Amino acid sequence: MSAAQSWVQLGELAVRFGCELHGDPALAVHSVATLQGGDGQLGFIANHAYIGELAATRLTAVVLEPQLAQRCPVAALVHRNPHAAYARIAALLHPPSPPRPGIHPTAIVAAGAHIDPAAEIGAQVIIEAGAVVGARCVVAAQSFIGSGASLGADTRLLQRVCVAAGTQIGQRCLLHPGAIVGSDGFGNAREGASWVKVPQLGRVIIGDDVEIGANTTIDRGALGDTEIAAGVRLDNQIQIGHNVRIGAHTAIAACTGIAGSTRIGARCMIGGGAGIGGQLTIGDDIVITGFGMVTRSISQPGTYSSVLPVEEVRLWRRIVARIKRLDALGARVRKLESAGATSAAGHGDDND
Amino acid sequence: MSAAQSWVQLGELAVRFGCELHGDPALAVHSVATLQGGDGQLGFIANHAYIGELAATRLTAVVLEPQLAQRCPVAALVHRNPHAAYARIAALLHPPSPPRPGIHPTAIVAAGAHIDPAAEIGAQVIIEAGAVVGARCVVAAQSFIGSGASLGADTRLLQRVCVAAGTQIGQRCLLHPGAIVGSDGFGNAREGASWVKVPQLGRVIIGDDVEIGANTTIDRGALGDTEIAAGVRLDNQIQIGHNVRIGAHTAIAACTGIAGSTRIGARCMIGGGAGIGGQLTIGDDIVITGFGMVTRSISQPGTYSSVLPVEEVRLWRRIVARIKRLDALGARVRKLESAGATSAAGHGDDND
Amino acid sequence: MSAAQSWVQLGELAVRFGCELHGDPALAVHSVATLQGGDGQLGFIANHAYIGELAATRLTAVVLEPQLAQRCPVAALVHRNPHAAYARIAALLHPPSPPRPGIHPTAIVAAGAHIDPAAEIGAQVIIEAGAVVGARCVVAAQSFIGSGASLGADTRLLQRVCVAAGTQIGQRCLLHPGAIVGSDGFGNAREGASWVKVPQLGRVIIGDDVEIGANTTIDRGALGDTEIAAGVRLDNQIQIGHNVRIGAHTAIAACTGIAGSTRIGARCMIGGGAGIGGQLTIGDDIVITGFGMVTRSISQPGTYSSVLPVEEVRLWRRIVARIKRLDALGARVRKLESAGATSAAGHGDDND
Repeated sequence: MSAAQSWVQLGELAVRFGCELHGDPALAVHSVATLQGGDGQLGFIANHAYIGELAATRLTAVVLEPQLAQRCPVAALVHRNPHAAYARIAALLHPPSPPRPGIHPTAIVAAGAHIDPAAEIGAQVIIEAGAVVGARCVVAAQSFIGSGASLGADTRLLQRVCVAAGTQIGQRCLLHPGAIVGSDGFGNAREGASWVKVPQLGRVIIGDDVEIGANTTIDRGALGDTEIAAGVRLDNQIQIGHNVRIGAHTAIAACTGIAGSTRIGARCMIGGGAGIGGQLTIGDDIVITGFGMVTRSISQPGTYSSVLPVEEVRLWRRIVARIKRLDALGARVRKLESAGATSAAGHGDDND
Repeated sequence: MSAAQSWVQLGELAVRFGCELHGDPALAVHSVATLQGGDGQLGFIANHAYIGELAATRLTAVVLEPQLAQRCPVAALVHRNPHAAYARIAALLHPPSPPRPGIHPTAIVAAGAHIDPAAEIGAQVIIEAGAVVGARCVVAAQSFIGSGASLGADTRLLQRVCVAAGTQIGQRCLLHPGAIVGSDGFGNAREGASWVKVPQLGRVIIGDDVEIGANTTIDRGALGDTEIAAGVRLDNQIQIGHNVRIGAHTAIAACTGIAGSTRIGARCMIGGGAGIGGQLTIGDDIVITGFGMVTRSISQPGTYSSVLPVEEVRLWRRIVARIKRLDALGARVRKLESAGATSAAGHGDDND
Repeated sequence: MSAAQSWVQLGELAVRFGCELHGDPALAVHSVATLQGGDGQLGFIANHAYIGELAATRLTAVVLEPQLAQRCPVAALVHRNPHAAYARIAALLHPPSPPRPGIHPTAIVAAGAHIDPAAEIGAQVIIEAGAVVGARCVVAAQSFIGSGASLGADTRLLQRVCVAAGTQIGQRCLLHPGAIVGSDGFGNAREGASWVKVPQLGRVIIGDDVEIGANTTIDRGALGDTEIAAGVRLDNQIQIGHNVRIGAHTAIAACTGIAGSTRIGARCMIGGGAGIGGQLTIGDDIVITGFGMVTRSISQPGTYSSVLPVEEVRLWRRIVARIKRLDALGARVRKLESAGATSAAGHGDDND
């Protein structure tokens, strides 16, 4: 959210973002909008399903791919990756507020904390001793930074983020409200009927350009560290267990849980509501669809799924009853095959 | 929680809430309780499974349906919807504390915020410029209201609710602790191996009489708005993606996630732990059972399910093995059918 | 996290924790580490998969089971439960910071709250009237304790925990950041198209030695109480509905949801991402594997599962198509069996 209203000419946008301009370079825009937007606004189209809306648009300009350039009734900024080009233009037109250097009088900053003078520390923030906040960081209202934790330059914590003691966060990261980084992992040793807590002594180490969603929780390592590599994108309400490692540029959608000590490779995409068991190794470039449940390691790049989509409930109940008797059904087919093999030349599947 | 101890006569309750009273109208109650409660208390029974407890009750009065009136050993307030009548009587006997108008000295309210003089602003609350808080609102301790956000009259934010900039909330809403409304959606454009953040510039618009559970997160629109219509009930730890629209009086149980741009109709009921994919359209009056996974649009009113209930683990593993070979099993049945068709008059199912 | 650097001799550890020492009792350690650690450090091995790392370790001492004692190249503390022995030694070497008695000047403690003089109340904490905080409790920064709530001795609330009014918490509990105890349950009575809120008037009662994870939510009872017995371990982002009862020493992993009024027995283990329906009774000593969906009561001790692990997506889609036609497949097998029974002596399964 910002109130930016500075105008930028299409010619400048084309040059800055590597677009081919079809239209008057002196035309200017001040904000982005959907295809239903109007004069002075810029939109984008990434999906051919919206071609009808493109034809009717009254935007000043549209970012689109080469194949759609002829269909655009207004100025077009043509790019082979219109979504990314749009994202960069939108960030230019709607920049986050720049840091307002200084420490709010209601913030509590321990004597031994190191706050860069170009950082902004908001109201009711608490920063403990030994913490380091880098240049141009923004620590928004009600956030907490524990002892010895550090934020690299240009990192932003939004409201009430909790960065527990010892956590290391890189540069240009963005943590959304309610995110908790460095909570204890779930470590319990059974002793008779009860549990002995296993002290959680490691840290969380987060690379540069990582985004962490609202109310997402990332546990510190038990021994050693939990590691989130550069460029990772985590949506809301994700749970990352202790000693998990996530490779660079992996993106994980909301409500996914990853159990302890699992390693996930680089450039993976994990859909929402997925669950990944503990102590697994998921390789690079692996896609898990939404609601997928991963219980074994996966090394082969590809797309994996286990979603069972809903059916009308009476049909579903019959299906479930069949699933519950599936072991018996398999045996019955085997028996039919054997009977057939006796009476004829056919034979059953050896895998049965 | 409240300490209300005012007594109300059954005759008054019957008139106010449209009940038929079986018993002395001068009897009075001061609080509600289960059927195990005692003198001066009122309970309800909505489920015939508790008829045994009804027979033994020592309550002063019970709210119940006409069919149970003869089974009640104490005074009865008869209503065709005893659950709703009970809810209204309980709210009368146990009202939330009325707002205590004023701003706590530790709250930080920006000069440009508009706080109705009849609103209560609690300790350590932060309200940014341009925010509007309506009459008789209660903003409980440690909550945050961003710039330009607004709360309609009689809305209550409990502890540490986060209402991000620009969010519009209607009248008589109730937001539980830790709820976050207006966090960024998960918008990322792929560019080579890495991601470019797509600025999230829309708002969240919430109608009247909406309840939002603890630690639930609702993302702002990317462009345009996320919309929650009047009377919607959201339980705890729900995730609502950007640009989702939810129709009036839809109720969603805990831990459900709804991905971006999906539209859900009015009067739907969605069970706990459900997952609804992005860019879908779910019509009115649709029920999704708990743990249901929705991956396609649904227009036909009805109940839909995909839950697979647990089985003893050894049996379950055999079932899973069968499921994994189900494609082969289908082919084997087809082969048996073909063999049968050759040797006799039968033939297989064309759907195979 | 702590900076303990006191040295403890192996002889003392062996005596205190009932280990058999293989090695020099005068050797000492100051901290714990993985098997990759070094001089002055102690580790453990609970899993034979790490025997190779044991052989190469340069730790001063390793806690291990009797069968591995001969494989240890350094001093060994032999215990039949090395995980629990390690946990206790780690807690000795890395104790949490002791409480610093007193109330931070920015904390807001109501006149009618009872704070033990040996308790530590952190910055920006809010404690309402009638609340009780026991001896040696630590209430960390930004936490909230509502009116009439109580904490037993030695209980710790980490950052921004919310303990709602009336909640009773036992001794030696540990609540992680963002946990919310005592939020309203999801109680709604349908009335025509809309909902009437059912006031949530009960409490949450938590026994001794309970641990509650980050951003976990536990709802108060509607009438009567939600009860979590002694020794229960709850991981992060768990949702516990109103009037749920959980028996002693049950452990529940992250992202699990338990719907209202369900009773769970003692010593159960519930995997991550599981879902348990409402009004069920789960007995003692029951294990639900991760992602298990429980829709019926379970009384028989044992392990139960319903996880469907991911497959490569094209195969998975064929499997789902087969599942959706499973009712028809069963009928086809029945038909084949009938045909076989006519032409031969065989017959089908009566369960079909």
